[in-house]
Amino acid sequence: MPVGTQATVKGLMPRDLMDELGARIILGNTYHLYLRPGHELIRQFGGLHGFMNWPRAILTDSGGFQVWSLSDLRKVREDGVLFRSHLNGDEHFFTPESTVDVQLALGSDILMALDECLEYPAPHAAADHSTQRTVRWAERAMAHYRRRMESMQPRHALFPIVQGSMFSDLRRRCAEQLLALDAEGYAIGGLSVGEPRALSLEMTEVTAPLLPHGRPRYVMGVGMPHELPEYVARGVDMMDCVLPSRNARNGCLFTSQGRILIKQARYRDDAAPLDPDCGCYTCRNFTRAYLRHLFQAGEILFSVLATLHNLRFYLDIMRQMREAILLEKFPDFLKAARSRALQAV
Amino acid sequence: MPVGTQATVKGLMPRDLMDELGARIILGNTYHLYLRPGHELIRQFGGLHGFMNWPRAILTDSGGFQVWSLSDLRKVREDGVLFRSHLNGDEHFFTPESTVDVQLALGSDILMALDECLEYPAPHAAADHSTQRTVRWAERAMAHYRRRMESMQPRHALFPIVQGSMFSDLRRRCAEQLLALDAEGYAIGGLSVGEPRALSLEMTEVTAPLLPHGRPRYVMGVGMPHELPEYVARGVDMMDCVLPSRNARNGCLFTSQGRILIKQARYRDDAAPLDPDCGCYTCRNFTRAYLRHLFQAGEILFSVLATLHNLRFYLDIMRQMREAILLEKFPDFLKAARSRALQAV
Repeated sequence: MPVGTQATVKGLMPRDLMDELGARIILGNTYHLYLRPGHELIRQFGGLHGFMNWPRAILTDSGGFQVWSLSDLRKVREDGVLFRSHLNGDEHFFTPESTVDVQLALGSDILMALDECLEYPAPHAAADHSTQRTVRWAERAMAHYRRRMESMQPRHALFPIVQGSMFSDLRRRCAEQLLALDAEGYAIGGLSVGEPRALSLEMTEVTAPLLPHGRPRYVMGVGMPHELPEYVARGVDMMDCVLPSRNARNGCLFTSQGRILIKQARYRDDAAPLDPDCGCYTCRNFTRAYLRHLFQAGEILFSVLATLHNLRFYLDIMRQMREAILLEKFPDFLKAARSRALQAV
Repeated sequence: MPVGTQATVKGLMPRDLMDELGARIILGNTYHLYLRPGHELIRQFGGLHGFMNWPRAILTDSGGFQVWSLSDLRKVREDGVLFRSHLNGDEHFFTPESTVDVQLALGSDILMALDECLEYPAPHAAADHSTQRTVRWAERAMAHYRRRMESMQPRHALFPIVQGSMFSDLRRRCAEQLLALDAEGYAIGGLSVGEPRALSLEMTEVTAPLLPHGRPRYVMGVGMPHELPEYVARGVDMMDCVLPSRNARNGCLFTSQGRILIKQARYRDDAAPLDPDCGCYTCRNFTRAYLRHLFQAGEILFSVLATLHNLRFYLDIMRQMREAILLEKFPDFLKAARSRALQAV
């Protein structure tokens, strides 16, 4: 899922997202949009869909992760979380109910329940305490969401987020408790907070099988290209990550032949496309030498072309996995992907 | 003519330049491309056309203006100009012959002869001295160009540049001397160097009628949208300017209703397109409120969408003028344009 933090996937026009990438859903960040330009303004424009002119699906996070990672002051209380804007220092207060309201104002198709994120490592007792609060918040968010839905078109869904830090027992208990909410989908959060990548996978492996089989399971904030099949192998349906777009802007490009750091001198006169196996506009039309020149010259077009390619690379992997699953060939796909990943190391 | 200084019109894909803007020619800067990535590298990739994947026409400047405006050390001698790179301080030397060679390596369709630019104001004696050197350089450039053409495809043209600072007598004499070169087109340079805008027009009015009627006349580095008809009225066929693209990135947008500074609070919830009379992708798909949000958030997409619009606005004016000329209605067009310009003030 491409990340569109501030009502734009950085550098890309909606038509490129649709036509070049075939993206069917993007992610918006509730915390950022609430602060700027404000959810009420976005509501006036028909929600994010109207505001940014994106006709396909939008998932919004709960704001919990960004409050945790960006806000200076942050005070988690039972009723909600008090924080300061990273833009101007103003104080704000998020509750499980208010973040549902903000996300509905944004017109989100898939909303997330407010959760508390924990740093890594966290002591078991603190993680237990925090996870139980996340469960109570999810119950409040779901109750409020269902009240709101009584007078709205039923095109939305609210996903609770499984927390539990890096403790299997907490993850399991949290998942089981959240199941009682009978949500249309579930997210696994609190990963990618500094833990070793094997641990993120382990927590997913513990949690995912407990979530309903017929409903989407979404792991938040992962991962590297070679990790995507590992998450899918553990029963995950959806992922989002800033890696492809952020790395693109920094000159780190993912290809079928491995990672390319475009600033390296070896690409100075490299007449090959970025990835000979890729069909994106960037790879169809430009050489590595040209992309390197744009990067070295600090040109905007580099960010545009690189983002286009990296996102296409991710979405192509997801498409290949969907196809393999439909053809009942996912085990073969996984085997081949693991062997390629080993070669790349 | 959109400006593509570093082998890219900042922020735009070649396909947008072609399909959205209908651009038929762009400008590349010899000084910049010579320094980075280097004309020999670009030659390897089939010139600028191949390197940046631009199939339509390319005009390159002589490098003289950039040497004058960007280089720290700059020493103009009879044989050429010694300068330091603004990137790393390295010393380089341009001659009338070497800049023809560089531009041919770039694969330029329309080359410019090396000229000397003067600051404004300049004393008459200094301007006279400098203008005569520019004429001698143009003679050398043309002689060298014709030698090179003996063994090349005849798809190129070399334009000498009329100088003469803000002195009518120097402009006239320079134009008459350069006519002897029987070039396929002529440029008027040394404008937009800080002089009042009325003076740029006056110098054009003095010079343009002296240049051959059946061949292109190109005024370098102008102008504001309302000035374009004034230049055309004085016999000018081609112009280039960084204004539309640079202003776009800075949030200054040109519309049929006047200039819009998008950061202004009045656009915060403005649901209108940037320019209701414009058919560009930006105006077809986004509101002023959304564009303002992108600008305030420092988003790359703002630069992309704003550049697309501003360049389309300029190229639409040029298209309207071509049409008016073909229909023999240019005097009416000019009258209407002047009346609109007065209203806008």
